[in-house]
Amino acid sequence: MPFRHSFGILGGDKRQLFLAELLASDGYEVFVYGFPHIDFVHSSIRKVDLKTTLENCQDLILPLPVSTDGKNLKAIYADGPIPLDDHFAKECEGHRVYVGMKERLLKTSPFWENADVRDYNAQEEFAVRNAAITAESAVGIAISESPDVLYHSRCLVVGFGRIGKQLSLRLKAMGANVSVCARKEKDYAMIESLGMKPIPTAKIGEETSFDLIFNTVPAVLFDRRVLQQFANTIILIDLASSPGGVDLEAAKELGIHAVQALSLPAKIAPKAAGKVIQQTIYMMMGE
Amino acid sequence: MPFRHSFGILGGDKRQLFLAELLASDGYEVFVYGFPHIDFVHSSIRKVDLKTTLENCQDLILPLPVSTDGKNLKAIYADGPIPLDDHFAKECEGHRVYVGMKERLLKTSPFWENADVRDYNAQEEFAVRNAAITAESAVGIAISESPDVLYHSRCLVVGFGRIGKQLSLRLKAMGANVSVCARKEKDYAMIESLGMKPIPTAKIGEETSFDLIFNTVPAVLFDRRVLQQFANTIILIDLASSPGGVDLEAAKELGIHAVQALSLPAKIAPKAAGKVIQQTIYMMMGE
Amino acid sequence: MPFRHSFGILGGDKRQLFLAELLASDGYEVFVYGFPHIDFVHSSIRKVDLKTTLENCQDLILPLPVSTDGKNLKAIYADGPIPLDDHFAKECEGHRVYVGMKERLLKTSPFWENADVRDYNAQEEFAVRNAAITAESAVGIAISESPDVLYHSRCLVVGFGRIGKQLSLRLKAMGANVSVCARKEKDYAMIESLGMKPIPTAKIGEETSFDLIFNTVPAVLFDRRVLQQFANTIILIDLASSPGGVDLEAAKELGIHAVQALSLPAKIAPKAAGKVIQQTIYMMMGE
Amino acid sequence: MPFRHSFGILGGDKRQLFLAELLASDGYEVFVYGFPHIDFVHSSIRKVDLKTTLENCQDLILPLPVSTDGKNLKAIYADGPIPLDDHFAKECEGHRVYVGMKERLLKTSPFWENADVRDYNAQEEFAVRNAAITAESAVGIAISESPDVLYHSRCLVVGFGRIGKQLSLRLKAMGANVSVCARKEKDYAMIESLGMKPIPTAKIGEETSFDLIFNTVPAVLFDRRVLQQFANTIILIDLASSPGGVDLEAAKELGIHAVQALSLPAKIAPKAAGKVIQQTIYMMMGE
Repeated sequence: MPFRHSFGILGGDKRQLFLAELLASDGYEVFVYGFPHIDFVHSSIRKVDLKTTLENCQDLILPLPVSTDGKNLKAIYADGPIPLDDHFAKECEGHRVYVGMKERLLKTSPFWENADVRDYNAQEEFAVRNAAITAESAVGIAISESPDVLYHSRCLVVGFGRIGKQLSLRLKAMGANVSVCARKEKDYAMIESLGMKPIPTAKIGEETSFDLIFNTVPAVLFDRRVLQQFANTIILIDLASSPGGVDLEAAKELGIHAVQALSLPAKIAPKAAGKVIQQTIYMMMGE
Repeated sequence: MPFRHSFGILGGDKRQLFLAELLASDGYEVFVYGFPHIDFVHSSIRKVDLKTTLENCQDLILPLPVSTDGKNLKAIYADGPIPLDDHFAKECEGHRVYVGMKERLLKTSPFWENADVRDYNAQEEFAVRNAAITAESAVGIAISESPDVLYHSRCLVVGFGRIGKQLSLRLKAMGANVSVCARKEKDYAMIESLGMKPIPTAKIGEETSFDLIFNTVPAVLFDRRVLQQFANTIILIDLASSPGGVDLEAAKELGIHAVQALSLPAKIAPKAAGKVIQQTIYMMMGE
Repeated sequence: MPFRHSFGILGGDKRQLFLAELLASDGYEVFVYGFPHIDFVHSSIRKVDLKTTLENCQDLILPLPVSTDGKNLKAIYADGPIPLDDHFAKECEGHRVYVGMKERLLKTSPFWENADVRDYNAQEEFAVRNAAITAESAVGIAISESPDVLYHSRCLVVGFGRIGKQLSLRLKAMGANVSVCARKEKDYAMIESLGMKPIPTAKIGEETSFDLIFNTVPAVLFDRRVLQQFANTIILIDLASSPGGVDLEAAKELGIHAVQALSLPAKIAPKAAGKVIQQTIYMMMGE
Repeated sequence: MPFRHSFGILGGDKRQLFLAELLASDGYEVFVYGFPHIDFVHSSIRKVDLKTTLENCQDLILPLPVSTDGKNLKAIYADGPIPLDDHFAKECEGHRVYVGMKERLLKTSPFWENADVRDYNAQEEFAVRNAAITAESAVGIAISESPDVLYHSRCLVVGFGRIGKQLSLRLKAMGANVSVCARKEKDYAMIESLGMKPIPTAKIGEETSFDLIFNTVPAVLFDRRVLQQFANTIILIDLASSPGGVDLEAAKELGIHAVQALSLPAKIAPKAAGKVIQQTIYMMMGE
């Protein structure tokens, strides 16, 4: 068991394809399991079975989320389901396992306690970098969903957290007039200093002259009562994680175009998202 | 024949739908011909035949381009072809006709000489405003076509005309490192002053470390010899009008992802494009 | 004692001149004490003595800092010292007193406990707004102190707090290449996402290819050992509050041009700073 | 006479000090005449008399403007006047002479026809690069002259030429609301596309709600009649070359703060300005 300078990638989606290439570019040996039909660019990337991966790699990378059904590994390029069972967990004993949403993995078997399981998705740094990708992707969605242009448009960004901050700056950079809904007085001051207009979240729906609304808050702020305040020509892009911040049924009835924009890094910029997984794991290894 | 405060819209595409609404919003009476199945928002927009349009409107708006086959009016929402023949031209006698690509219209009949035909597409102002829409749309295309993100990416914009100027500024605003190919020494100075790197067009293909290339020059600069210099992971977005600036066959053989991005205002931002037609016609009326 | 819609301004500097005008513009009655020779624009501003001010105003505004020597009111336009003694404190009994650096005031007399003393300088919102002013002023100082231009220059901003954030964004907006020294990994991610280069504070002095350095950290990071690493052509602008972050003696010996830039809002933008005092007091009144 | 890899700098101001250092940094031998008391950083820079300079250098650099009185060389660091007479011109025979404002030099002697005199100031590229420096310097002046901040301020830039373009973009980058006076319809479209508000120059003085006005047009647009339209709290920065675009006497009488901001590159950023002279001469040598 050489156990050095190698990574095992177990399952995943498009992000893992890029992650494998990026790790190979950095000179690591890369073993992948769950990608039987993919033609990788780096010929050094080895498509193997679980056993071979574990024999050759101490560091294993599992996807984000590790599982969508709670039972099987997320592995969209695999031929069939890869069960996350006691067998899988036992095989991983003694390995360092980088995973997104650790708690879902731990529930699948008690034997995970014998592995060194670390959640890259729980790193603040990972969240910030993905917020940047999400913000740029949201700009792209706005450009393609709206029949109008962003510059001179009136945009409302709801929430001034990681995504709200980066999104509002990008919209402004593209020439939009940007208002931002936030809850804290100190955020109002920062929003104003950045050349945008602060609106207290409590007053949502009072000012309604917007062309585009981007929601980042994971609470149903846009219920029927609030939605009714807006013209039905607005475009509402909901970036909040499921179940989101918009009463979609009410939006539909009111004729409002609401776009549920989930998992943007994986969907719109999988290469960038793969790079962020790589950077975060490098950082976690260095700690 | 009241002939006042009314516009007749004859044929067109999605831009004309928005144009009709915008004119109606401004209080004009709007008669449209060639849109039998469209449900307009403003109930005042009247779907009529050619004769009724002409009886009610002195100012007629024809599409851009006025015809794609040289024989019939461009009218993608009409039930059948609307021939641009002597009859059509004679009917328009005495009217002011705003059209895109006037020369195509004049070729269809000698009787156009009896109408006051004006080309909005020939206005410099129209070109500048459409360049802004094209630039934003190109940013949107780059975001959705590239698996990576724009910020920190290395972009090359070929050409520093109307589109090149606005596109390079927007890419920079989105965080990209931008180089611009231009021919004139004074352009190099301006490019540098705006925080971008100038590259003489003659040296295209010498520096090749780019992630995205946007071509705006309507000449085949990207022939096989030049394309071969680049890694085949680049994404090449060709904004130059047909036949464009890229040897598409060579690109395909080399495995380079080339995107032909034509008529972006009509396709990506028809509302904004309709607004620009409106603004330009208003300006021409005021002259 | 009408006690309504009036403000008493007791002492201060240039900021209070603008504050008085701004309050008068908003329709308040304004009584000022400590400005005998000032010609105010609003004729309604009344120059009176302490007693008249207190008789007419429930809300009193004292300067920031309230005192520079711990004994007298800061009042640079007064004819002589205005002692902060028991008499002054007793006179203010029953009043609402807005002050900057409350703790300095409370030390001057035990009788302040009978007044409702509130510190606008302690409000987070006040700090954020002043940081924006400081950031812009620092850009102005850099332009005038450096014989070179900001665009294309290599700037290092030390610290990514309120001032560091706003300053680095403004320098980038002016075309500079910006690096930012910060301590937290999550800040590195945000700095990168904003198109700037993060440098761990611990590594200060390792990378030295900068033209301009802006320090915002109130600790002597730039001691002799660190200063020696840089070329003596750098310009070092120290924004950290006294005693600052630079060993000035060492800088002088090394021939490094170090600028102590303190109290920038009051010095460079007193009108904006007066507006921020006004906004903060309005906010405190509304709570 | 080796005549290679050497430059002779004859007279000048602060820009020439930096120019000499920059040329020396690039490995050229540099001979300077007219700087007897300057301590240059590069020890290789030789302070010599006119004769020695000419013996050693084929390429001579004269200042911009070459003369302020039409008789003597501009040489602010010289001990006495250096006459531009027949003797001087004859001595330069057979040399390549780079000069700013060639026509002033030619008037001083008929013997200049025997030298190869080239005007760097007449290069479009030189003008564009100096416009960038002027634009940044004007931002610096605005920050220090105004008691308020640029962000959220209402700025009017008069003229959309080289300086107007670069200045308006920088003001916007600093957070200002920018309007631009221009004459051409196509400029209006570009101004709008860049997120600024176009105003026809003919309508100057009609819209008056501005905090700062920057004039770049060398014609007295701001005469008494126009000045009277504005509040006397505006700050007017005149960047147009002498005699400028403002009736200064009227401004004074009206209590308007007007700043004549001439020769900003030489005054505010002499190093950057010296670099531009260097770049332009290099380019001219390569042609």
